[in-house]
Amino acid sequence: MRLLTAQQFNAESQQYIDHNDENIDRAVLEIIRDVRENGDAALLKYTKQFDKVELESLLVSKEEFLEAKAQVSLEFVVAIQKAKKNIQEFHEVQKEHSWFVNGENGILLGQKVTALNSVGIYVPGGKASYPSTVLMNAIPAKIAGVKNIAITTPPQSNGKVSPYVLVAAMEAGVDVVYKVGGAQAIAALAYGTGSVRKVVKIVGPGNAYVARAKKWVFGDVAIDMIAGPSEICVVADDTAIPRFVAADLLSQAEHDERATAICITTSSAFAEQLQEEVEKQMQTSERKEIIEQSITDNGKIVLVGSMDEAFEIVNNLAPEHLQLMIENPLEQMHRIENAGAIFLGNYSPEALGDYIAGPNHTLPTSGTAAFSSPLGVYDFQKKSSIIQYSKEALQDVTEDIITLANAEGLQAHANSIQIRKVDD
Amino acid sequence: MRLLTAQQFNAESQQYIDHNDENIDRAVLEIIRDVRENGDAALLKYTKQFDKVELESLLVSKEEFLEAKAQVSLEFVVAIQKAKKNIQEFHEVQKEHSWFVNGENGILLGQKVTALNSVGIYVPGGKASYPSTVLMNAIPAKIAGVKNIAITTPPQSNGKVSPYVLVAAMEAGVDVVYKVGGAQAIAALAYGTGSVRKVVKIVGPGNAYVARAKKWVFGDVAIDMIAGPSEICVVADDTAIPRFVAADLLSQAEHDERATAICITTSSAFAEQLQEEVEKQMQTSERKEIIEQSITDNGKIVLVGSMDEAFEIVNNLAPEHLQLMIENPLEQMHRIENAGAIFLGNYSPEALGDYIAGPNHTLPTSGTAAFSSPLGVYDFQKKSSIIQYSKEALQDVTEDIITLANAEGLQAHANSIQIRKVDD
Repeated sequence: MRLLTAQQFNAESQQYIDHNDENIDRAVLEIIRDVRENGDAALLKYTKQFDKVELESLLVSKEEFLEAKAQVSLEFVVAIQKAKKNIQEFHEVQKEHSWFVNGENGILLGQKVTALNSVGIYVPGGKASYPSTVLMNAIPAKIAGVKNIAITTPPQSNGKVSPYVLVAAMEAGVDVVYKVGGAQAIAALAYGTGSVRKVVKIVGPGNAYVARAKKWVFGDVAIDMIAGPSEICVVADDTAIPRFVAADLLSQAEHDERATAICITTSSAFAEQLQEEVEKQMQTSERKEIIEQSITDNGKIVLVGSMDEAFEIVNNLAPEHLQLMIENPLEQMHRIENAGAIFLGNYSPEALGDYIAGPNHTLPTSGTAAFSSPLGVYDFQKKSSIIQYSKEALQDVTEDIITLANAEGLQAHANSIQIRKVDD
Repeated sequence: MRLLTAQQFNAESQQYIDHNDENIDRAVLEIIRDVRENGDAALLKYTKQFDKVELESLLVSKEEFLEAKAQVSLEFVVAIQKAKKNIQEFHEVQKEHSWFVNGENGILLGQKVTALNSVGIYVPGGKASYPSTVLMNAIPAKIAGVKNIAITTPPQSNGKVSPYVLVAAMEAGVDVVYKVGGAQAIAALAYGTGSVRKVVKIVGPGNAYVARAKKWVFGDVAIDMIAGPSEICVVADDTAIPRFVAADLLSQAEHDERATAICITTSSAFAEQLQEEVEKQMQTSERKEIIEQSITDNGKIVLVGSMDEAFEIVNNLAPEHLQLMIENPLEQMHRIENAGAIFLGNYSPEALGDYIAGPNHTLPTSGTAAFSSPLGVYDFQKKSSIIQYSKEALQDVTEDIITLANAEGLQAHANSIQIRKVDD
């Protein structure tokens, strides 16, 4: 793992990144067009082509749900239920409520909060399975009051969906699961097909094709975010334990060769120990190839002169996961402007938040924490403003509205006020 | 104005709309590339090409701000200040606050709310000027605590910015105004140039080029929404006053030939009176050509059999502006699932909300109220989740996390927990 100064690190961060890839876009746009025109037939065709499975039905059946229940261990069910409880408790606090204020002369202003009617959750599949993704996306939608929640996930080579995913779906109260992945799944959720019901919002992570498809359907439906590779940033001082930090960096690196693991430290002794620990732990890790690639390409230890310098880097980076493994982390938290989630102290590793602590693990990646938030109940609710004026209240502002409408050259706006003035 | 049954209306609404336009996209992507590579030189070039002005500086000077103050009437300043006060009071209520909950064994969970660091507001210009757009976008950002707020607007043919816009900017506390419009303005805000400071979020309405540019830079920066043409939907019964409803429909129609004005009513007598009133008022309107085109193309009166039918149409339509001009509108409000803003009664016309009532006039258009909200303070704040566990608290969930990580095949995640278990 490379050791850099703050200056070296900043110089490397000034890269020009172009996220657009014309080849992916062309393929994705063709898939979207095809699904809009040919519906289920297109979905079945792409599932055969990409997932190497010929399906008869795109829907997971009741029997398959029951099979899944029989296939998972009791420990798994217990763990899922514990996670569910914590996620529910945390997200309940986020629920928003309608509000109003009264003014003079019968003025009523406010906002009415309503749940989205329907949501589609993309859950990556194929070889791996992500039951935690199911909980983290479905539970906030349920708490918001979304009536129609569907999951879509690519089938395994046997034409089934992972039992872990199906059990998590049942625990989260989702009973519609489609066996379709990729850009075709996003198109189906956005526009509907014979089997797949159109939704108004699509959430959940996916590969580059899924991400681009989400970008293309955005506007016709809402999306959560366009997720990039995952990152961790650990700020460590002398009180941090190198073994722990190394394990945390590796847990991020195992996600993806493009994942980023960065440790910023004020201690050169710690930096050296960390380098050794990372090398050592890498040798015994199961996903060694991915981890080595990721650490070699994107792993960095940044040695800084002060905590001020450390937090300046953090705020420029806007990391998805930020671990403060320093003395009195809570006292330093006010310095953080941009981060998806902040983990405090030596016993709050990222994996705790990924699975069970309660806050959402869907976090803004690739610096987007500078302008976006973790997924939450608020992503599944929307607001309508409310305006009620009485005749008297309107009279009081009549001249002002007419002045402003005239300044904008919008005479019919002015007239809609004027016409109410002369009425008795 | 055409009179339709609910069935006829629904049949017409089933159109397949493709928002993508390859010619616009090609032009927009070229402009973005050019601005990223050539900075201010590209901005000055496009301003000369599209706005027919050769500028020396892209920034509005202090002298120009002072000039603007001298050019506007006292009535205008008074009206702007009244609007500002109402907008501020309404948006103060929306401000979100950090929160936390404590659990057993030293668990601390919560969300830290932070303002975005920088925001760019696009204000359309050229022949028209929109001071109300300035207030509606800048005031919520100010209340959120955004430190750097900039406006960008195309210059008039004399190389100046409308004094109305500059006075509104001063009132809202914005002192950076760039003289640049179109896709080039969006690119400049997203990536920065010599004169234009990069921001993390871009808000505000614009033409098709501005809208597509926002779609393309989305992900690198946040955007508010991709605004389409504006709509009004009035639900009216026998208590509605045809003159008022006609004036309100026309106030929407004058925005744009593509604007939509719809009235849904249970009364055929009212429908006929409304038709007459619309014809009559159209003849005397200043923006007659736009209004006639818009009403002919997109103006519809829908005669329904019941209020149930009316609200079903409303919820499918998800109108930007919804006026309930019926008896006891507040009692019917619970039926509304999708609408940008709801105006209640005969004395709450849309123009009241456009300018002065207080709620934001930036509303979800073209059916997007099914999944999005009016612009608000919440659009300029973001959240970071907070997770702090003690050693004891982590021990309690160690086995569950390991079970879940193993189910997902993420062994390094499991290891980051395991390694803390054996530590004393």
